[in-house]
Amino acid sequence: MRNIYLKLMYKGTNYSGWQRQENAVTIQEVLENAIYKVTSEKVKTVASGRTDKGVHALGQVINFHTDTKIKEENIKFAINYNLPLDIRVIESREVEEDFNARFSAKEKTYVYLIDNSEVKNPFYIENAMNINYKLDIEKMISEAKSLIGIKDFSSFYKVEKNNPKNPIRNIKKLTIEKEENLIKIEITAESFLYNMVRIIVGTLIDIGSSRNKMSIEEILSKKDRKYAGFTAEAKGLYLKEVIY
Amino acid sequence: MRNIYLKLMYKGTNYSGWQRQENAVTIQEVLENAIYKVTSEKVKTVASGRTDKGVHALGQVINFHTDTKIKEENIKFAINYNLPLDIRVIESREVEEDFNARFSAKEKTYVYLIDNSEVKNPFYIENAMNINYKLDIEKMISEAKSLIGIKDFSSFYKVEKNNPKNPIRNIKKLTIEKEENLIKIEITAESFLYNMVRIIVGTLIDIGSSRNKMSIEEILSKKDRKYAGFTAEAKGLYLKEVIY
Repeated sequence: MRNIYLKLMYKGTNYSGWQRQENAVTIQEVLENAIYKVTSEKVKTVASGRTDKGVHALGQVINFHTDTKIKEENIKFAINYNLPLDIRVIESREVEEDFNARFSAKEKTYVYLIDNSEVKNPFYIENAMNINYKLDIEKMISEAKSLIGIKDFSSFYKVEKNNPKNPIRNIKKLTIEKEENLIKIEITAESFLYNMVRIIVGTLIDIGSSRNKMSIEEILSKKDRKYAGFTAEAKGLYLKEVIY
Repeated sequence: MRNIYLKLMYKGTNYSGWQRQENAVTIQEVLENAIYKVTSEKVKTVASGRTDKGVHALGQVINFHTDTKIKEENIKFAINYNLPLDIRVIESREVEEDFNARFSAKEKTYVYLIDNSEVKNPFYIENAMNINYKLDIEKMISEAKSLIGIKDFSSFYKVEKNNPKNPIRNIKKLTIEKEENLIKIEITAESFLYNMVRIIVGTLIDIGSSRNKMSIEEILSKKDRKYAGFTAEAKGLYLKEVIY
C-alpha cells in the first residue's frame, strides 16, 4: 500500500477539534469522508497530534495508507473537491512506508494571536483572543525567556483524566511580536503537554497586565498548575508547522 | 443639537451593504437601531459613502445629530453594547455643527486583498478574493503607475441607472505589496466612481496574468468600460480610511 502525507490548513471554528468522536463533527471525520469519496476506501488517518475544539491549523500533517492510483500531487485537488472550504489540503505526497505523522514528528510550532484592541476587531472574532487592556509587551518578552530550554512544565499543563504525564519538555524557541494591535506569540518545542501553549499564553498575559506578580521562574519552580495564569481561548491558537 | 462623528469597523459579509433598503439587512439600519436603543431618538446617519454588499470597512466615518447627554467618548461603548460583533464603533466624538461625513470628506483610501494561493486559504474565505494562478507583480506595479494623477476613468467604472458621471478623478497614491501569498492593493483618491476600485483591481489582475495584453495607458485612452478587466469580488474590498 502507498503511504500518503497530507498537509492541512483549517479554520477550527465549526468543528469539535481534530479527533473523531460520537455526536460531534470533527475534522478527522470530514477528512476521512472526503478521502472515501476519492478512493472508495475507509482509511484511518493519523495526525501529528489532536487539535482541540475551535483551534486552527496552518500546517497540520496527517498520513494514511491507500491503494489509490491517483498521482501524489493530484490527491490534494481530489480531496479538496470533496471538502468544505474551511478545511484545505495544501500539500500531498507519497512518503516512505514507516512515516507516521504522529511518531515521526521531531518538532512542532504553534502560533497564538491576541487582538489587543480596546474595541474587539470584527475580523478576529473567530481567529484571535481579544484582550482589551494594556499589556507590557517588553515585560512579557523578558519573562518568556525563562520558558526556553529543558524544564519541568508541571505548572503549565492540564492533567487529563487523572493521568499526569512526564512534565519535562524542551521549548526551543519562543517569540513575541506586536504589530499594530495584533500580538503574535510563536512557540516551538519537540512536543507539548495538554493545553500547554494556551496556559503559557494566559500566564504571559497575566504577567503583562500585572495581574500575576510572580515571575515565570517562580511559577515553574512551584510545579503546580494553580500558580500559572488562565487558559487562553482556543480560537487564538494555530498549529503552524510540524517538522519531521 | 450635538453633531456626533463615529468611526466604524465592519465585516460586510452578512449585510447587504451600508445603505438602508427594504427587505434586506444593512449596516445603516443595524447601526441606527443601536443608536435608538442608546438615545431613544430615530436618527438619520450620514456615511462618507455607501459600501456595497459584502464590502468591509476598517475606518468608515458617519455622523448624526442627537440631544443625548452621554459623554462623547462613551457613546462608542453604549452603541457597541447594542451592536452585533461584526460591526464596531472604534471612535466617537463631538464635531462642529457643519461637519458632514459625506460632503466634508477630502480623501478616501481603499484596500483590496487578494489571496494568491494555489489552494484557497480557509482564513480568507470571506475577506479576500482568491486568485489561484500566477501573477506578475512587477508588471502590475509598473502598469499601476499610469493610473496615478488626474485622469478620465471612463474605462474604470460602472454607469448606474443610465446616469453617467463626470469621469475625471484624481488618484493620489496606489501601492501594491505582496507578503507570502497575500497581495495588498491600496488606493487613495479624493473620490471614486462606482465600482472603480474593483474594476482597477480586476484589470491589474488581468494584466498580471497576461489575459489582458493592453497597457493601462491604452485602456484609459479608450474611455470605454469594455476594455478594462473584470470587477473584482466585493469580499476583498475594505474602506480603510476617510480623511477630512
